[in-house]
Amino acid sequence: MPRVFNFSAGPAMLPDDVMHQAHAEFLDYHNLGYSVCEMPHRGKDFKDIAERTEADLRELLAIPENYKVLVMPGGARAQYAAIPFNLLKGRKKAAYLDIGHWSKEAIVEAHKYCDVNVIASNADPAPTYIPPIDQWNINGDEAYLHYVDNETIGGVEFPHIPDTKGLTLVGDMSSNILSRPIDISKYGLIYACAQKNLGPAGVTLVIVREDLIGDEHPLTPAMMSYTVFSTTDSMYNTPPTFPWYMMGLVAHWVKKQGGLEEMDRMAKLRSNLLNDFIKNSDFYKNPVDPSCRSRMNVPFILADESYNDAFLNEASDVGLVNLKGHRAVGGMRASMYNAMPESGVEALISFMQAFEDKVS
Amino acid sequence: MPRVFNFSAGPAMLPDDVMHQAHAEFLDYHNLGYSVCEMPHRGKDFKDIAERTEADLRELLAIPENYKVLVMPGGARAQYAAIPFNLLKGRKKAAYLDIGHWSKEAIVEAHKYCDVNVIASNADPAPTYIPPIDQWNINGDEAYLHYVDNETIGGVEFPHIPDTKGLTLVGDMSSNILSRPIDISKYGLIYACAQKNLGPAGVTLVIVREDLIGDEHPLTPAMMSYTVFSTTDSMYNTPPTFPWYMMGLVAHWVKKQGGLEEMDRMAKLRSNLLNDFIKNSDFYKNPVDPSCRSRMNVPFILADESYNDAFLNEASDVGLVNLKGHRAVGGMRASMYNAMPESGVEALISFMQAFEDKVS
Repeated sequence: MPRVFNFSAGPAMLPDDVMHQAHAEFLDYHNLGYSVCEMPHRGKDFKDIAERTEADLRELLAIPENYKVLVMPGGARAQYAAIPFNLLKGRKKAAYLDIGHWSKEAIVEAHKYCDVNVIASNADPAPTYIPPIDQWNINGDEAYLHYVDNETIGGVEFPHIPDTKGLTLVGDMSSNILSRPIDISKYGLIYACAQKNLGPAGVTLVIVREDLIGDEHPLTPAMMSYTVFSTTDSMYNTPPTFPWYMMGLVAHWVKKQGGLEEMDRMAKLRSNLLNDFIKNSDFYKNPVDPSCRSRMNVPFILADESYNDAFLNEASDVGLVNLKGHRAVGGMRASMYNAMPESGVEALISFMQAFEDKVS
Repeated sequence: MPRVFNFSAGPAMLPDDVMHQAHAEFLDYHNLGYSVCEMPHRGKDFKDIAERTEADLRELLAIPENYKVLVMPGGARAQYAAIPFNLLKGRKKAAYLDIGHWSKEAIVEAHKYCDVNVIASNADPAPTYIPPIDQWNINGDEAYLHYVDNETIGGVEFPHIPDTKGLTLVGDMSSNILSRPIDISKYGLIYACAQKNLGPAGVTLVIVREDLIGDEHPLTPAMMSYTVFSTTDSMYNTPPTFPWYMMGLVAHWVKKQGGLEEMDRMAKLRSNLLNDFIKNSDFYKNPVDPSCRSRMNVPFILADESYNDAFLNEASDVGLVNLKGHRAVGGMRASMYNAMPESGVEALISFMQAFEDKVS
């Protein structure tokens, strides 16, 4: 089958160049006679992969020297527990902003470990706007403030870094890391699972300010300890080596494309193309407030939802796959991460126009 | 470079057939137009992979119906915390047998969660024997008994399932799962990280009796909860999909080879070939007591250790790689998991004989 345009929210499409490089060296990595899948993680070859990956990520994200770069297992979900385990430091309360599904999931897990002050919320599982910051109920005695920078299901993304009034800011960037420059110094901690913009599923990137490491809850599992991971270069145990290697290929690819400014330019280009088309259509609608529309995930609904199945089937027939919206909100969703080329969005728009013409 | 014989303790050599199949379908899985690396984990295609993997593992290991098969992240290390979190059930004490490095590491982590009764131990980081069972100091009030079925560093393996006098038995089979038939019903829980006998690093197999699921410690992270993983078919979050898929290929390959009886026959053949050669040599020595020599990891030392570097370099030159022993014990170690063909052991023995002839 020719390569399709895969609009999956994650695990997501990876760059063609990355896939071809990984394929070319899958059986014999750099003339070693075996695969990265079979490589001892404590040998020189994997150490090189790990160091190159960190160096590329530090350069791309301009990570200040007083931040550690950790590679951890368990996805963003593991961080939902790791963050209170590591960052509460004896305090009893943390602040959480709720702007959608993943915000809520983080809150559920945090409730095990502390009093959760939900500083602003929306009962809807997929809010279409971000509560204005002057309505956030920050007390000031919370150990940190957690928020999700991009909600994949609702398609809501922060247009700017929120002002936390001095609280340590913790950002879930699982679905928009490496898609625009960010000022890391505004954060105490950033985390991102790999399977949207970083690589295949299996590793999670954690960028944490050094002074926040240590003084963990005594029951913190070693596998969730920032102290353990920072003192062992994330190799306390055998890490998911192949996903880590793929993350390194992706980071290198982003550099070759021109870095995060270029990723941001492309992300805006893709999402603006699609949103402009939707705006000019009577058949499609993006429910999200234009002030906080995600550059990564564009949800849209059909004027007549009885056409949903036909839309998905016919899209798939022309190589536009995984466009079904999350079950919590229905409709459609086009996830367009760094790996999605402009031609993929153009093909989607052409199809959407033809579908509309046919059924209207 | 032609394919080498990789004696790494883990991540380890994978079967040639598995590597070639994964390579062939890396860019386009089953005519989908994208890779397993890019496949949504909640779609039909990955569900098929997950179901086939479980079915093959259940058949191979003859897993009784009242046991759940979970696929979890974080390696065996994550289980060192997950086991007390899930299995203490309000009790204050657990029994741990110490027969080497990994036994000790599990004990260190367990100390966070309970009183650890080390029922028998050896101060040496790599004991060369298993303490006789009549010397085990089991009290009977422990929540469970944890032991390591095969210690990769010392090269010590249990010849039989230990009698726990009624205590729930928890076995770490990270390095010998799928290498011989086992009576699962003797265990409360078995776990095994993938990167020795199951696939590349990133997933951990947990086989747990259903009545042991539930009543966890209230601070158990969801990502370590057997309840959460058993009620979500191990897809509470996005799992490491590519390692999981590879584990499925490996399980299928083991079935095609003839199952666990054949794996056991091959494991004994490989380790006996090497141990018999070592026994008849004046230059090499396996320090482990013959009653509990591992079929998977054969440690050996050279009569003159000043030849260690030359041995490793010359072995590598003829395609026999990763033979260096663990830094805790030094010397050499040949790890020979299911994927190691007989020809690999024969090549190693030929080299060892030639090296001995040269330097003696």
